[in-house]
Amino acid sequence: MNIPSKILENAVYEISRLPGIGKSTALRLALHLIKSDSSEINDLINSVKALHENLKSCKNCHNLSDSEVCDICKSSLRDDSLICVVEDIRDIMAIENTGQFNGLYHVLNGKISPIEGVGPSQLTIQELINRINNNKIRELIFALSATMEGDTTSFYIYKKIGNDSIKFSSIARGVSVGDNLEYTDEITLGRSILKRVPYEQSTKE
Amino acid sequence: MNIPSKILENAVYEISRLPGIGKSTALRLALHLIKSDSSEINDLINSVKALHENLKSCKNCHNLSDSEVCDICKSSLRDDSLICVVEDIRDIMAIENTGQFNGLYHVLNGKISPIEGVGPSQLTIQELINRINNNKIRELIFALSATMEGDTTSFYIYKKIGNDSIKFSSIARGVSVGDNLEYTDEITLGRSILKRVPYEQSTKE
Repeated sequence: MNIPSKILENAVYEISRLPGIGKSTALRLALHLIKSDSSEINDLINSVKALHENLKSCKNCHNLSDSEVCDICKSSLRDDSLICVVEDIRDIMAIENTGQFNGLYHVLNGKISPIEGVGPSQLTIQELINRINNNKIRELIFALSATMEGDTTSFYIYKKIGNDSIKFSSIARGVSVGDNLEYTDEITLGRSILKRVPYEQSTKE
Repeated sequence: MNIPSKILENAVYEISRLPGIGKSTALRLALHLIKSDSSEINDLINSVKALHENLKSCKNCHNLSDSEVCDICKSSLRDDSLICVVEDIRDIMAIENTGQFNGLYHVLNGKISPIEGVGPSQLTIQELINRINNNKIRELIFALSATMEGDTTSFYIYKKIGNDSIKFSSIARGVSVGDNLEYTDEITLGRSILKRVPYEQSTKE
């Protein structure tokens, strides 16, 4: 690409460092920004700055929050004896979108992955154990990826907590709703046959 | 989308106002920015600010430039008696990428379009006329879109200049190199038959 200006070239380079943005898209965005009003640019810059300067991590669950404690942890309508353990804040958004969960969350900020050099101490596992020790928790739900790393992480936490009074559960794995069996991968289909549920139970909402 | 923080929601809103960026992409970018280093964010913000504050429009040709006069206009290697008229700076980049043009440019910043309310006075047509009057120009090449608006704009400029000593030309229209005739649209194919060129000329590079 033959960019006529160093300033534009620099902006294209910086924008193209964002994930999923190639050089052409970055150029398109930069050219759009050149033509935008100053107020639009300032709004964009200030909102990005605020992400770094004002956004907090909830001290209970490590969800993103505008204050010390996030709205979910603050809410009196939620069941605080139920904790759903997730890898990432995006998982909270996904589960919240279903409208099917009324407990609290705990964000691990990743999963145990020796290949990527992520050990238990880099995750918020100790904070989770403290939370369980200091509060009356009835059930811990693991909602981690169905990968070796996800399974390792949930097993590590399960062993580490070693508390008999808590019920541990994991979100159901199986064939997606609406999926054709012939297109489902073998491992998922195999596991969903082994872990079959009584018919009466499967038809209940 | 159930975004847990007003600050994040605001950043997602601002990012999704960029062209071609939807809400999911904006969320992905915002979450990436949260995890980025402050230095990365500052580099990005400064480069975007510089687009507005430091980038100039070349006073000759209206190309983007870091200084008063752009590198193309400054260059002593280029033929300054040849001006290629384009709509947008992106067209300059496209033509420069071909490596086939050695003259100067003139960016109109759009084309005459009554539907979109763009008249000749909003374009840099008067500046082009001044340039022609003050410099020795041999040839003016129209490299505008092959649309009604593009044709109207070039005809308007041609009539407005009304100078017999200048050669006017337009970039060649026809079947794209490498295209199959059966997939070429009727209008292009029809025109390329009407505007056929002598065979000896067409085989010359």
